[in-house]
Amino acid sequence: MDERIRVGIVGYGNLGKGVRKALSRNKDFKLEAIFTRRDPARMAIDEGEIAAGVKFVSIYGVYDYVETIDVAILCGGSAADLPEQGPALAILFNTVDSFDNHARIPAYFDRIDKVAREANTLSLVSAGWDPGLFSLNRLLSACVLPGGMSHTFWGRGVSQGHSDAIRKVEGVKDGIQYTIPLQEALERIRRGDNAYFTAAQKHRRLCFVVPEEGADLETIASSIKNMPTYFADYETEVHFIPAEELEREHGGMPHGGTVIGTGMTGVGHRQRIEFGLNLESNPEFTGSVLVAYARAVHRLSREGRNGAITVFDVPFGYLSPFPASRLRKELL
Amino acid sequence: MDERIRVGIVGYGNLGKGVRKALSRNKDFKLEAIFTRRDPARMAIDEGEIAAGVKFVSIYGVYDYVETIDVAILCGGSAADLPEQGPALAILFNTVDSFDNHARIPAYFDRIDKVAREANTLSLVSAGWDPGLFSLNRLLSACVLPGGMSHTFWGRGVSQGHSDAIRKVEGVKDGIQYTIPLQEALERIRRGDNAYFTAAQKHRRLCFVVPEEGADLETIASSIKNMPTYFADYETEVHFIPAEELEREHGGMPHGGTVIGTGMTGVGHRQRIEFGLNLESNPEFTGSVLVAYARAVHRLSREGRNGAITVFDVPFGYLSPFPASRLRKELL
Repeated sequence: MDERIRVGIVGYGNLGKGVRKALSRNKDFKLEAIFTRRDPARMAIDEGEIAAGVKFVSIYGVYDYVETIDVAILCGGSAADLPEQGPALAILFNTVDSFDNHARIPAYFDRIDKVAREANTLSLVSAGWDPGLFSLNRLLSACVLPGGMSHTFWGRGVSQGHSDAIRKVEGVKDGIQYTIPLQEALERIRRGDNAYFTAAQKHRRLCFVVPEEGADLETIASSIKNMPTYFADYETEVHFIPAEELEREHGGMPHGGTVIGTGMTGVGHRQRIEFGLNLESNPEFTGSVLVAYARAVHRLSREGRNGAITVFDVPFGYLSPFPASRLRKELL
Repeated sequence: MDERIRVGIVGYGNLGKGVRKALSRNKDFKLEAIFTRRDPARMAIDEGEIAAGVKFVSIYGVYDYVETIDVAILCGGSAADLPEQGPALAILFNTVDSFDNHARIPAYFDRIDKVAREANTLSLVSAGWDPGLFSLNRLLSACVLPGGMSHTFWGRGVSQGHSDAIRKVEGVKDGIQYTIPLQEALERIRRGDNAYFTAAQKHRRLCFVVPEEGADLETIASSIKNMPTYFADYETEVHFIPAEELEREHGGMPHGGTVIGTGMTGVGHRQRIEFGLNLESNPEFTGSVLVAYARAVHRLSREGRNGAITVFDVPFGYLSPFPASRLRKELL
């Protein structure tokens, strides 16, 4: 009997593709279908042989899969897609998503929790690396070193939100933004400096911009550097490059970062916990995290758990396809 | 009503002291008693005001505390103490320990699991940082990056086992050993070199030795460097120093290390997960980890869980004194 975990991917942008690739490395999963708002026939052709054997289905056909999907992995965006899809799909399926609007997590969690309890499904919200693995390390530091602090650095990596903001500036044809941690702040915190650092005190922003023909470069640079929230508070550099260079040198989606937890024990012994990620592909790594948590959701659901949960509620043992005795023997 | 978690510390060496200090920073705990094989009256005097208000009790008096202790934190050694105390105390109490003989964990776990199930108690074995937090990160890497590898580096820090081995060499009055990671191996792994590295390929050993008067230094150095298992395979340095210098410069118990998980996603994107500790006091940090896990054991036990568990079985949310809603809001 096929005991693989049957999953559906909802939304097939960068993250959805990352999830599909992760599934191919995890043999205990079976991808039943990819749900899309685009034309499924068109998608199958566009994706070509790389997605051979994958079934694309209109998002409106999701109801037909209630009996055949164990976990739906939601790969839509946090701004427009998930607030609508999350609660709607939690009625039908166990779900995992990467809702990453930190300020709105509590309200999102509560909405999902309500419908999932009523439907007796289980939904893990806000998995990935931040929120996700970084959150776990912030929590770990807070628990092991009470009275200490944790500091989160992002990058070096591409920020989608800041890249989008650049592209909306008048005279900009295309562009990308790298968030880069300030080494000096990082080293100060590693040495035990217990001050609070704002995001702008921890990061600088590096922009590569393809201008439209005839656009005024100084005006563009100034519009970017003075953009409130996104750039105004930061040390920001703007470089103008040709479209070919953008495509050739900046096509990847690297990212990463570091969570540093510091605190004291005893009469003043400094202790430091550090968790870092160095990712050549952000969406593929995030997809890999979602797949591991989909495994946990499947197992917890079979144990009778329902409602909404987060990474804080899942023992690491549930992320693994292997029995606990093997994990104790080989990894403990 | 006092809702604090009532704990006992069993064994009052470096780790037991670390636990006591950690408890003083965690206000949801109440230390009921410290159990010792030494003379309790003598202990109270020796520890002086630093342990003011602490009740020392003979280990044989532990039976009187069955009703008044929620979790016993076992701070004995893994060689002689825990194999005996662990199963004996799991009959009476929920327990947490730091059993760290990796090869013997499965057998130790099974013994404890059996008695704890029968007694309806809950025992978390092998907490601390390795086994413990490092194990969690080895497991995380294995789950998120299947097909990848994880590499564990220890140090720079004092190895108690190797220091003890030095002290048994003829002509040695006192001594200490630092395990030091080889930066070159670390950097090769960070760059994605997927080879297997032996412990000797990842570490060197630095020894500071106080010789007995008139001892032959060359003989001592050679005995240390050629000692099988402990030193023979390693790049080992031996320095002879006066007793005063050993006391002045090498009295601390720093330690730490790094777990590096590497793997591929997609068509060859390299991904790296890194978890590092930098500890000025190893026993105080380990004690802090045990206290956080004692909190989890108390809560899981009240939920009806029994038997033996490890860090792999505990959601991080259970390590915190704060409600899940607050953790989601502030740390996710």
